[in-house]
Amino acid sequence: MTDTKAVAPGCLTGVRVLDLTQFEAGTSCTQVMAWLGADVVKVENPVGGDPGRRTGATTPHRDDPYFLNYNSNKRSLTVNLKSPRGLEIVKDLARKADVFMENFAPGAIERLGLGYDVLSKLNPGIIYGQVKGFGEGSPYENNLAFDMIAQACGGTMSITGQPEGPPAKPGTTLGDTGTGMLMLISILASLYKRKETGQGVRLGVAMQDAMLHYIRNAFAVTTKTGKPARRAGAKTIEGGNPPSNIYPCAPGGPNDYVYVYTSRANPQHWPKLLEAIGRQDLIGDKRYETSMARAERESEVDAIISEWTRKHDKYEAMRVIGAAVPAGAVRDTLELMNDPNMEERGIIQTVQHPTNGPFKMAGWPVRFNGKPSVVKPAPLLGQHSAEALKDWLGMTDEQVAALRADKII
Amino acid sequence: MTDTKAVAPGCLTGVRVLDLTQFEAGTSCTQVMAWLGADVVKVENPVGGDPGRRTGATTPHRDDPYFLNYNSNKRSLTVNLKSPRGLEIVKDLARKADVFMENFAPGAIERLGLGYDVLSKLNPGIIYGQVKGFGEGSPYENNLAFDMIAQACGGTMSITGQPEGPPAKPGTTLGDTGTGMLMLISILASLYKRKETGQGVRLGVAMQDAMLHYIRNAFAVTTKTGKPARRAGAKTIEGGNPPSNIYPCAPGGPNDYVYVYTSRANPQHWPKLLEAIGRQDLIGDKRYETSMARAERESEVDAIISEWTRKHDKYEAMRVIGAAVPAGAVRDTLELMNDPNMEERGIIQTVQHPTNGPFKMAGWPVRFNGKPSVVKPAPLLGQHSAEALKDWLGMTDEQVAALRADKII
Repeated sequence: MTDTKAVAPGCLTGVRVLDLTQFEAGTSCTQVMAWLGADVVKVENPVGGDPGRRTGATTPHRDDPYFLNYNSNKRSLTVNLKSPRGLEIVKDLARKADVFMENFAPGAIERLGLGYDVLSKLNPGIIYGQVKGFGEGSPYENNLAFDMIAQACGGTMSITGQPEGPPAKPGTTLGDTGTGMLMLISILASLYKRKETGQGVRLGVAMQDAMLHYIRNAFAVTTKTGKPARRAGAKTIEGGNPPSNIYPCAPGGPNDYVYVYTSRANPQHWPKLLEAIGRQDLIGDKRYETSMARAERESEVDAIISEWTRKHDKYEAMRVIGAAVPAGAVRDTLELMNDPNMEERGIIQTVQHPTNGPFKMAGWPVRFNGKPSVVKPAPLLGQHSAEALKDWLGMTDEQVAALRADKII
Repeated sequence: MTDTKAVAPGCLTGVRVLDLTQFEAGTSCTQVMAWLGADVVKVENPVGGDPGRRTGATTPHRDDPYFLNYNSNKRSLTVNLKSPRGLEIVKDLARKADVFMENFAPGAIERLGLGYDVLSKLNPGIIYGQVKGFGEGSPYENNLAFDMIAQACGGTMSITGQPEGPPAKPGTTLGDTGTGMLMLISILASLYKRKETGQGVRLGVAMQDAMLHYIRNAFAVTTKTGKPARRAGAKTIEGGNPPSNIYPCAPGGPNDYVYVYTSRANPQHWPKLLEAIGRQDLIGDKRYETSMARAERESEVDAIISEWTRKHDKYEAMRVIGAAVPAGAVRDTLELMNDPNMEERGIIQTVQHPTNGPFKMAGWPVRFNGKPSVVKPAPLLGQHSAEALKDWLGMTDEQVAALRADKII
């Protein structure tokens, strides 16, 4: 059992991250660094800060839960990047940083005078990460992108949805967080290398390109068929033998389904499933015995299973069928958020936020020697301006006060 | 422009990975380490190897493209884990390894006698990674899981599909590769830490738990509404003002759509879109001027845009609309695979495989100083048995020959 009171010591303690990210693709990357112990100083516009603070916010003067999810454990430093003195401060911070991360529109960071050519001269060891919508050398490299654009252009939508219906966007924000994770892997590998060489690097990833990493099964299908992979509802893109689908459960709500999977590689799955649902009478029945036979009688197979699942709720169905073959209840976000086991295990943690109050959020799911990483609240705008300038640049209270008076921070 | 002939030097050169993974969740993790330069030695059963080699394979004696996608740049070493001598060899390899990675069924690796308690005694610096379906302390911790089970139980299916339809599985294999990436981040952070401490660690992640990391936008909705986040077709879970959806393009095929997005935060998007589609006559029209007004007249807004998009193919639509507001063609896997720009930029690379011939696959999408990582073919079963035993354990040809004669390798 995980002891959620004990937390994993941060692997990245001592790593300084100068964070010029906003919204999600960049913030998700620096978020994980903060969870793993890095000192992430988020530089924000003194007027409003990261626009993600207000994305969809419904209450004035409160940061939206969207922002809270991607910025916990960070420190917020406000700097006016349009003032020469503000820019100098960011350059001074860059001299002290191990990692720099940004996801502004194409060309924006270079126009600010904070491009890699500039910062790497000040700090040759800096690891400089950039997330853009489209790659360098792409015909669209100057276009803006958001999660849904990346998912359209990167192939994930083409393989999501019902077979006869239009493309659907996966509900996951893979164009954002999925890209941020690939950038983070590259940052950490570069930090590791730098321990030997002292050399920094410019890292770049496009959200469109990152999507390809997550649909390699669909590419494998295309390699074999020479055709585009097709949408498959709740089934896998590769096809696979029935049952491998969702089945309706009582009481029939929008997410009252259980996934039931039987592997072609394991001929014991089918008789074990029949036993679990009380249809021992069909064990050995030639009509359904092989995966080939079941593929030909898919609607009959579905009817046999649904007859049982409709009489049980999804958790009971998962308990009974899951003891025999792989099975899983389709769970919604409210069920997951309110699942006491998720909180016991520290997968979801309750954070005390100074203005929003107690707030439940998913933290880093990986356990270090069985222990979770601690989640702290996202910073208020400018909450750590003085603290960060003193820590990183050794400023005095007077210097900080002067910057405030001049509206630089 | 990326020079695909120049490749990024591997950050993980010199890192030894003892890879006991199979299928995808584990293999995707070690795959990226291999791309980034680590020496990944994949230990496989001499009879058949990783079952992923044959998953869906249609031609005898060939490894399936599924396997090729997740195992390139690795070395294959066959070892019979059921023989005491074979187990000893794996323990000897563990003494030399920096990272150990496995994703067997719950309890299997411990029953083999290769649990963390055993290997960490032989090598206190080993970073020991495990991917399972469900977390330690979960009521389902002993259950098997596959990608679709993780996506059912982890919430991603509940928010994917049409609003009035059943849950759909995102076509992305997020339960597998999505989990593997979070494990990899933890491995790399631990390797970084180990440079200072010399200490290893046991890392564990559950596929169900990992899904929560990718649906934090949906959790933000639940935080605000107190209700489960709902499926939204091609729109975002958060809602958002129209247009933010896919629009049908000529000639009307299953993926002939263009995504058009206008941000609530940017009031210029709507008039710019109208100009792009030749409807300057509507600029300033009160019926559509604010995002609130457009939300009330969503079907009219959709009709205005569709009237134009239906007359253009998706690439032309992306070109014209994308110059004004965020827009993206819905691309399928065949279009992406055959896009010369993807190959020019090294996002998709053609690999010469000894039995399958030339094979196109997506490599690591992140660029290091503008350069891609090189992709080499996946190993044939046991292709590097002798080489790996000589490199890691200093064995002689005679010792390797004796192991072969005894069917240990």
